[in-house]
Amino acid sequence: MALVVQKYGGTSVGSLDRIRMVAERVAETYREGHQVIVVVSAMAGETDRLLSMGWELCNAPAEREMDVLVSSGEQVSAALLAIQLNEIGVPARSMLGHQARIVTDSVHTKARIRTIDGTGLRSTLENGHVLVVAGFQGTDAYGNITTLGRGGSDTSAVAVAAAVKADLCEICTDVDGVYTTDPSVCPNARKIDRISYEEMLELSSLGAKVLQIRSVELAMKLGIPLHVRSSFSSSEGTIVTDEEHLLERVVVAGVAADKKTVKLTVRALPDHPGVVASVFEPLAEANISVDMIIQNVSKEGHTDLTFTVSREEADRAEAIATRIVDSVDAEGVTRDDEVAKVSIVGVGMRNHAGIAARMFRLLADADINIEAISTSEIKTSCLIEAEHADRAVVVLHDGFQLGKPSD
Amino acid sequence: MALVVQKYGGTSVGSLDRIRMVAERVAETYREGHQVIVVVSAMAGETDRLLSMGWELCNAPAEREMDVLVSSGEQVSAALLAIQLNEIGVPARSMLGHQARIVTDSVHTKARIRTIDGTGLRSTLENGHVLVVAGFQGTDAYGNITTLGRGGSDTSAVAVAAAVKADLCEICTDVDGVYTTDPSVCPNARKIDRISYEEMLELSSLGAKVLQIRSVELAMKLGIPLHVRSSFSSSEGTIVTDEEHLLERVVVAGVAADKKTVKLTVRALPDHPGVVASVFEPLAEANISVDMIIQNVSKEGHTDLTFTVSREEADRAEAIATRIVDSVDAEGVTRDDEVAKVSIVGVGMRNHAGIAARMFRLLADADINIEAISTSEIKTSCLIEAEHADRAVVVLHDGFQLGKPSD
Repeated sequence: MALVVQKYGGTSVGSLDRIRMVAERVAETYREGHQVIVVVSAMAGETDRLLSMGWELCNAPAEREMDVLVSSGEQVSAALLAIQLNEIGVPARSMLGHQARIVTDSVHTKARIRTIDGTGLRSTLENGHVLVVAGFQGTDAYGNITTLGRGGSDTSAVAVAAAVKADLCEICTDVDGVYTTDPSVCPNARKIDRISYEEMLELSSLGAKVLQIRSVELAMKLGIPLHVRSSFSSSEGTIVTDEEHLLERVVVAGVAADKKTVKLTVRALPDHPGVVASVFEPLAEANISVDMIIQNVSKEGHTDLTFTVSREEADRAEAIATRIVDSVDAEGVTRDDEVAKVSIVGVGMRNHAGIAARMFRLLADADINIEAISTSEIKTSCLIEAEHADRAVVVLHDGFQLGKPSD
Repeated sequence: MALVVQKYGGTSVGSLDRIRMVAERVAETYREGHQVIVVVSAMAGETDRLLSMGWELCNAPAEREMDVLVSSGEQVSAALLAIQLNEIGVPARSMLGHQARIVTDSVHTKARIRTIDGTGLRSTLENGHVLVVAGFQGTDAYGNITTLGRGGSDTSAVAVAAAVKADLCEICTDVDGVYTTDPSVCPNARKIDRISYEEMLELSSLGAKVLQIRSVELAMKLGIPLHVRSSFSSSEGTIVTDEEHLLERVVVAGVAADKKTVKLTVRALPDHPGVVASVFEPLAEANISVDMIIQNVSKEGHTDLTFTVSREEADRAEAIATRIVDSVDAEGVTRDDEVAKVSIVGVGMRNHAGIAARMFRLLADADINIEAISTSEIKTSCLIEAEHADRAVVVLHDGFQLGKPSD
């Protein structure tokens, strides 16, 4: 008998029929003799519907109240799944964030979990119940309802798994695992059997939608292996675990393309000490994450400073950069939305020299110009023109032979 | 400065525009210097939408989970109203049943309030906040979410008013008060300025939809005067209070017609001791409320037993009666859906003889046949053919001169 946490996302509980299917699947695990805690998201579309009501009322809705509003979505799906489980003979109880004692900080709309008291959960399990925990939500120390930010149900699942010392944490979703790259771009993309937390983190940051970044961070920190798999098939998905548990350390695990990036250039910036800080400090104060940075060689005492930001933050970043131009006596700001960032990720890059060089060569041979480069220990990213993004993914995926099963 | 509880029903918060209007009205009271607790129902239609999802999943959805499901409706409206109040500069906080510490028994879907710890509510008020309490919901001693049954937000409002020792409990609704009878039936129906709890109870039982019966019972028990008034006009409504606070004791306060009644007759029942009990015991066991009962004079050792039940319970009652017919050797069961119960209600009836006789005379003069009669201290009801119901209301309303302002 194992203690299993299964998380189902919004699409998996997106209709009453889907909820019936999820219930069957939970029942199967339960009838095999396992203890099951299910963590559910809101029904697909529901969170957006609730948010839009709040935003329709005003421009800056009170965040405490937005949490109360939005958390009702998971409440509904948890109740419906518990109803259906009882209907098919599986004793089940829903638990909201405050009932499961998921205690967070008080940062409404993006709270972080502080503690989960697993004793209540465990004792209900030991009464033979399946628990259906509303994901995405918690309560702060004062009893206020909080939410964990978009995709927070993944994080709920990991934290609950840690609190009850679960044997397994399954993230059941609408894809059947983590792929070497986006299969809709690269038809011979291959499902990865095992991947390290670090690689998963990089892939998530680079736009792979399978797992929320914070849930991977938390799983890594707490040492909870995740099984990413399809909600509606019994085939094995992808195990996300620490490096020691990988069967082999592939050099490149996956390729990702992030098309939601925007390039901003501050032109003819006077090149003197502190001028770069004067650009990035106001951006940091505005909570804008700058990704890649390129500073051109100085010419006649002036330099161009180019950086990329996410599309969501591009308007704000551009406005701030434009304000800076006057204060530091630069020439102006240029914006380019037609860029993309392609990346290769793999823990093996730590010990293999020349991987980045090979990436540049593959892109060059395909006549794809590289506008900027950034690297981390297990990742190399290149900024290219957006129109070449899909082709770049295929070139890299083939070039690093990711379509071949590793053997 | 007064402490005011205002309850707004589902129609009053039925859209974002309506919520904006309610917020303006709450703000007005707040800006006059009063402390305000608002109790809200779910947005009109929302409770039915949620219930129907549960019922679509199964025939007997787990009641604990139905409460979790349905209570999300008030959570949404409370959050939205709090958002809008903050938007227009009124500091406001929503409070769910468990946060307001509205403790009920554990009878899911129709729980009764046991206690409300008003200290939390009061201290938040003293911080200058308007509180928006989700109506209809509470929590049992074990932290499970409970609901109070349909219309339960009225009851929440009364209980909250008692817990915080409010000066006033306003029930804001889509009509502007309690009327002497249904204005759509009788155009010269008049708004009642003051009415006693007892009269209001009778009128509610008889089909006046303005207030939930239990909320009136609770207000009477706790001595909380209610002000029933329109959500969207500032005109005075109807004060529901104890008899001593009535300006005058009118003989007849109101006329009501209940068209949702069904007459069942068990024909040719052998007339021997215990036979009547053998009919009503099974009905009581099935939790069916029998309203009027008429037993005909016995003829040749047999009697006809007629009784009325509500339309909702008529099918079940008929089935039970049909089963009984065989066991007691009666002839059969006749059902008549085309009946209505018209009633006159007034505390003055206690001290005025002849009111009932006058009612019978008024109906007789209008050629309306009376099939059965039932009376209480402050009420007389007559069962008549349904097609005469509206006419009977007008006849009684005019006959007792209820259209004239009392002076």
